[in-house]
Amino acid sequence: MADDALIVFLPSGRRGRFAAGTVVLQAARELGVDIDSVCGGRGICGRCMVGVETGEFPKFGIESRCEHLGPMSAREHRYQARHGLAPGRRLACAARVLGNLLVDVPAESQLHRQSVRKDPHERPVRLDPVVRLHYIELEGPGIHDQRSDLARLEQGLAEQWGLEIHAYDRTLLAELPLALREGDFKATVAVREGRLLMAIWPGFRDRAFGLAVDVGTTTLAGHLCDLATGEVVAAIGVMNPQIRFGEDLISRVSYIQRHPERATELTATVRRAVGKLAAATAAEAGVEYREILEAVLVGNPVMHHILLGIDPSQLGRAPFPLVIDRSVDLRAGRLGLKLHPAARAYLLPCIAGHVGADTAGMLLAEAPHAAHEMCLLVDVGTNAEIVLGNCERLLACSSPTGPAFEGAQISCGQRAAPGAIERVRVDPITLLSRFKVIGSDRWSDEPGFALEAAGFGITGICGSGIIEAVAELFLAGLVLPSGLIDGSRAAECAQLVRDGQVYSYRLHAGTPEILVTQTDVRAIQLAKAALYAGARLLMDRMGVGSVDRIVLAGAFGSYIDPRHAMVLGMIPDCPLDRVLSAGNAAGAGARIALLNLAARREIEALVRRVEKVETAAVSSFQREFVAAMKIPHARDAFPHLDAAQDGRARDAAHQPLGQSAPIAQRTTQTRKVAGASDAGTR
Amino acid sequence: MADDALIVFLPSGRRGRFAAGTVVLQAARELGVDIDSVCGGRGICGRCMVGVETGEFPKFGIESRCEHLGPMSAREHRYQARHGLAPGRRLACAARVLGNLLVDVPAESQLHRQSVRKDPHERPVRLDPVVRLHYIELEGPGIHDQRSDLARLEQGLAEQWGLEIHAYDRTLLAELPLALREGDFKATVAVREGRLLMAIWPGFRDRAFGLAVDVGTTTLAGHLCDLATGEVVAAIGVMNPQIRFGEDLISRVSYIQRHPERATELTATVRRAVGKLAAATAAEAGVEYREILEAVLVGNPVMHHILLGIDPSQLGRAPFPLVIDRSVDLRAGRLGLKLHPAARAYLLPCIAGHVGADTAGMLLAEAPHAAHEMCLLVDVGTNAEIVLGNCERLLACSSPTGPAFEGAQISCGQRAAPGAIERVRVDPITLLSRFKVIGSDRWSDEPGFALEAAGFGITGICGSGIIEAVAELFLAGLVLPSGLIDGSRAAECAQLVRDGQVYSYRLHAGTPEILVTQTDVRAIQLAKAALYAGARLLMDRMGVGSVDRIVLAGAFGSYIDPRHAMVLGMIPDCPLDRVLSAGNAAGAGARIALLNLAARREIEALVRRVEKVETAAVSSFQREFVAAMKIPHARDAFPHLDAAQDGRARDAAHQPLGQSAPIAQRTTQTRKVAGASDAGTR
Repeated sequence: MADDALIVFLPSGRRGRFAAGTVVLQAARELGVDIDSVCGGRGICGRCMVGVETGEFPKFGIESRCEHLGPMSAREHRYQARHGLAPGRRLACAARVLGNLLVDVPAESQLHRQSVRKDPHERPVRLDPVVRLHYIELEGPGIHDQRSDLARLEQGLAEQWGLEIHAYDRTLLAELPLALREGDFKATVAVREGRLLMAIWPGFRDRAFGLAVDVGTTTLAGHLCDLATGEVVAAIGVMNPQIRFGEDLISRVSYIQRHPERATELTATVRRAVGKLAAATAAEAGVEYREILEAVLVGNPVMHHILLGIDPSQLGRAPFPLVIDRSVDLRAGRLGLKLHPAARAYLLPCIAGHVGADTAGMLLAEAPHAAHEMCLLVDVGTNAEIVLGNCERLLACSSPTGPAFEGAQISCGQRAAPGAIERVRVDPITLLSRFKVIGSDRWSDEPGFALEAAGFGITGICGSGIIEAVAELFLAGLVLPSGLIDGSRAAECAQLVRDGQVYSYRLHAGTPEILVTQTDVRAIQLAKAALYAGARLLMDRMGVGSVDRIVLAGAFGSYIDPRHAMVLGMIPDCPLDRVLSAGNAAGAGARIALLNLAARREIEALVRRVEKVETAAVSSFQREFVAAMKIPHARDAFPHLDAAQDGRARDAAHQPLGQSAPIAQRTTQTRKVAGASDAGTR
Repeated sequence: MADDALIVFLPSGRRGRFAAGTVVLQAARELGVDIDSVCGGRGICGRCMVGVETGEFPKFGIESRCEHLGPMSAREHRYQARHGLAPGRRLACAARVLGNLLVDVPAESQLHRQSVRKDPHERPVRLDPVVRLHYIELEGPGIHDQRSDLARLEQGLAEQWGLEIHAYDRTLLAELPLALREGDFKATVAVREGRLLMAIWPGFRDRAFGLAVDVGTTTLAGHLCDLATGEVVAAIGVMNPQIRFGEDLISRVSYIQRHPERATELTATVRRAVGKLAAATAAEAGVEYREILEAVLVGNPVMHHILLGIDPSQLGRAPFPLVIDRSVDLRAGRLGLKLHPAARAYLLPCIAGHVGADTAGMLLAEAPHAAHEMCLLVDVGTNAEIVLGNCERLLACSSPTGPAFEGAQISCGQRAAPGAIERVRVDPITLLSRFKVIGSDRWSDEPGFALEAAGFGITGICGSGIIEAVAELFLAGLVLPSGLIDGSRAAECAQLVRDGQVYSYRLHAGTPEILVTQTDVRAIQLAKAALYAGARLLMDRMGVGSVDRIVLAGAFGSYIDPRHAMVLGMIPDCPLDRVLSAGNAAGAGARIALLNLAARREIEALVRRVEKVETAAVSSFQREFVAAMKIPHARDAFPHLDAAQDGRARDAAHQPLGQSAPIAQRTTQTRKVAGASDAGTR
């Protein structure tokens, strides 16, 4: 037909011929072009804004011109008057096709666009949120149309949005009659998973938020996200107040084993904290609690069970069975979250007794199953949760590293907090050391450090600090491969101090004095051996001698210099540039599950495919463990490290050791928000 | 094979050949014979007890003997020692076939048996309860079997009971680990609808109860039932405390319309009452509240909405739309019912703005859709809810009878309570009247009545009393077909007293004086005309001139003498013996939905098939209504009544009018339990 026009949509390239006068949104829908809309094409929401690319496009055989879109409609003028319309932008639901057109659908107008990121470290997520808003206009009841309010609404959603509603939240019924009539039967509804009617508001509405929470043993990290854009509008980290029942998981579980009647107290404590965290993020972002419609939570099995009010005692006794190993979907209010009364909370599935929903989150974030390369994921904590695999197979285990990596059971150990030594360098020639302390950007031998340090005091050494200290002492030859601090070199090194039969290395002579003792080295050896043996166990089970990529996850993992980890033999050999930090991968996974519905089904299916290996049940584990006590495990098994070491040795004169950056920069400032943005659970 | 034996099960007649040594329960299952079991064939529950019919059975070509069942097994001896075993009874799960057998499965051993009835007026229900108990024995976890507790349980239920569990109650998780271990991985679970895991108890357990509640405008009636037998173990009726917000529905709705902020108060009031009722039934039956696993509730649309916390204001304004017109299934705790924490409540669906879940219950109990005969169901109240139809078609409407039938807007009217005149006779010759009063079994002209009456006082006249009074006055010629009290007969009748321009009939001369005024007659005329016009409207719509059966439901309907109803022209013509009382049909329907799962699906499908007729939208309704004001509507349209009247006239000398029994005997005693057993909602 002469009146037909060819429309090409970018970036999809989808195209088709349409009669003159066709509304652009209609053409897009017929072609399956991904354009957003909350108001259902009524010119209210402005989500469907498009632009026109003008000029000759020989590729498509058309000339595209602005005037081929027809003049601004009354609806567009009204929208422009109320909300403004950027130059060149038109509403796809109002603009009509008059001639050939190249229509640009900008990213922000795409339904399944990527999430908006304020912080470049945030992962982009393909938006497909679990809860969506839909504006709807209905006929009111009359003497010949006595459908119930609910039936009327559901039929409207079917006709106007193609939604097949299967259920409604019980709180909806109380709101429904008034909301419909207050808005003269124009209303916005929130629909979950395309089938659960959650909430209704009179008239048009465009704000909906979701909360992702990583419930860590030490820290709770909350991210409040705009469900429409994926943008993180608030990120807050708070301490887990359960710490008063025990610093680490094991002590909390044994507290409950000793006081079963007080299990509910731990549950109440963590729920209160999660509730406060939700309120704090909402307050920071200026969001009403009723605007938060969904929550996703991750946590290790113990935190997961306690949060759900499940006695975690079994997780402290072999064979450590979970009570539930699948995802949990329940009313958010049940977890102490004061969100919209219909808001629901989703907990990612746990995988095994010590491989929790946090590991499931890490899987979702790092997606080892999406690639062919053999990937080793390690979440370092009191237990190292280890996953090995690729698109073909995934293995998981948990290895009892103990709390040394968290600074516990270390003579001068402490949690990562201002005043803790977090990085250490030992000069292999002078055998003198220098260090950095959380709260200062300066090394201890730099000018101004003493003044800064006086402000907070040097109080101890945290996990990453003790690892670096032991690794550097080993590199300097002061710690032998057996782990012995070499007292024979006390003459050359004033920092080596005798302590009975053994020696310690004095890192800092102030008050308190910060020592690395022989016992500390042994504790780190035990921890690193457990981690290495766990990884090795999975590699043996998988039948691979090396891995293509290592991801260190969790707050702690982020602060380990991969070189030091490899020097110690914590992790298997791998090209150093393929050892990556995932930051708070569990929290990132929670955010993915919040913003993308398909991700939930994906992880639910994936965790069933993960083969759980119980280290205690594998006879070779003890052997591997004992062998891994040596530093590093087997030197000749680390060609990549050797190469790196050699390079470093060559460059030593030009590039001081201290300049090799750890994966995550931990400065005073990042520390402040570490709980939320990157650090998460420790 | 020579070793084969023929087993015939009675009463089903199912038969088959089985190898010697086959367990009887196994044979029954293979043949699809309906035998109950809670313990899964472990000799614990005793539900599978069977007997043997001995002798020659030429019909089956076998000789059946006791010894063909083999000797009592150890398991049977153990059961007998613990619980006893009636002579001749064996456990099907333990007894083995040795030769030809005629096995009798007694009613109590059938899975889908009829409910046990203490009261012959209770309807039998085919048992298929929504919640069932299943005993299960599991392997505990080990180092090579680390399934989660939930997965272990679900797999056990699949293997041992063939159950496919789809969901679990959130309260289960907290109970699960301890319950499993306390019973050494032997436990009893409650499963709802064959797929929702509700609750778990350590070891074997055999008690589960359900509650059916009819939430009436005036009365709440609760029946607590044993889910295993269907037996009603407690029945209690209490007043609806909402009465302080208005005696009838309209006044409660208008209270909420005037004080929308107090709607929640009405909800809280009725929920508290339902909760107390539940507690009272449990206490009466000696049942722990945690043993009650399910509740079913019915009520008219206003009570239904208020109970759910839905503002019922729209039900007081044309076109009276419901907020929800389907069944509701929610946690019982949400309605203020303190039952097992996982117990759920099911509300039958409402049909239309004035045709509620109580009518749905009536449909379930009276099953007009199960027969070809044309049935008219009437629930008489402030609104008459009327259903007409048969297996082919069902029509429903509500007719605004007003509160006259409930004794309101009647000069000396009162609720049916001790002291109220409930039955009236007027001698057509002497024109003298006599009456019966609630609280006494004697007529007012019988010896001893005065003494009894002095005990409680004669305080007024209730709905059934005023109906009988007007009908009797009409039969005596003191009320004319137009409804006018015929003052011209004042000379013959001392009880006719002048009241301005019109006359009243003095029923009782004491203090207070009980009069039937001209205004009272008009109120009854209006009410009966509305009822008749509603029925007529449905008959016209259905295209039928008469009906085969009339069922008067609700407490009030039970106390109306059908003859008086027909004399007044309240109901269309019908053979008098085909006018039946259904008692509290709504409550009976609730009990059916409690004990039989299929009944829920049946009523949910059925209400969608019911065609709702809005009387206000039908132009002929007003015409019918005006015509129906006459007493009776059209005399020649009542051939059955005429025949009955003629018969009565013939027998008048022999059988005093007062001897014709109304459908329900309302004595002091039945009145006491009327709210629960038969009367229910008024």
